[in-house]
Amino acid sequence: MCAKHFRHKPPTQLEQQQEMLLVVPALKSQVNLARLVRLAGCAGIRRIITSGSDKVDPKIARDGVDHVLIEKRRSLIPVLKKLRASGYHIVALEQTESSQVLYDYAFQRKTALLIGHEGRGIPNEELRVVDECIEIPVYGMPHSYNVVTATTMAVYEYCRQFHL
Amino acid sequence: MCAKHFRHKPPTQLEQQQEMLLVVPALKSQVNLARLVRLAGCAGIRRIITSGSDKVDPKIARDGVDHVLIEKRRSLIPVLKKLRASGYHIVALEQTESSQVLYDYAFQRKTALLIGHEGRGIPNEELRVVDECIEIPVYGMPHSYNVVTATTMAVYEYCRQFHL
Repeated sequence: MCAKHFRHKPPTQLEQQQEMLLVVPALKSQVNLARLVRLAGCAGIRRIITSGSDKVDPKIARDGVDHVLIEKRRSLIPVLKKLRASGYHIVALEQTESSQVLYDYAFQRKTALLIGHEGRGIPNEELRVVDECIEIPVYGMPHSYNVVTATTMAVYEYCRQFHL
Repeated sequence: MCAKHFRHKPPTQLEQQQEMLLVVPALKSQVNLARLVRLAGCAGIRRIITSGSDKVDPKIARDGVDHVLIEKRRSLIPVLKKLRASGYHIVALEQTESSQVLYDYAFQRKTALLIGHEGRGIPNEELRVVDECIEIPVYGMPHSYNVVTATTMAVYEYCRQFHL
């Protein structure tokens, strides 16, 4: 038995601000970007860089819209190179021949998480400029998590590691 | 730098089948149920009990539709009592006065995860018949994860704990 529902619990205060940011391609579904914005807002992630449309549905993203900076860039490869030069560890969420399993992966605090297109994933040209790749085991059909679901798991794991 | 994209990587074989199931109220959005079905399918969860419509959009749930059994029940309270009697630990994903933080929570293998309605959460009558409550810290606006996002995090944590 649990005590009763606690509505509008205040958020947890982080001792140090999150230093993860998301790098997002032009997605097939603009709904997925909006869902990422809500995820980011709640997780304390304050910056998303995208090469797609930066149009975000506030009915889905909620107040995340006003708390997450969305930067639109023509191409992601120069973005990744620039982020790395400014001290970000570039981590791609993609199944590759050398991906590390998310369960065993230790994030660096300053991480740029590159995610892939819903259908095509991350192109090899981008994989060539990242530092590491991580992947999430799947155990059944359809053998592939939705892009927001996979990003949610990686963001959760990051938050879990830097909770203290 | 990462090695190249590995398309259609085979799923991970579990030594022991997942023993988590999801208990889902009538949701506001049928899209959320379909997203839960895809999540469950990939995570190796093979059973969802819902008191809402069991109509699932296969464009969203993908092959999860054929691999996750969706059972429709009129009311969840008798379901929770029956599950508990058959050995399930009943865990509610809800902010309450006594919720444990997901980061520190050790799942039992045989877990029924009760989730809440998008707006109203889990009613107190249901909270009274669960064993424990868990919650996920939020660090920023809009101060509340989408129901599928929160469930994704709990399912990920369960999979992480029973990976070996």
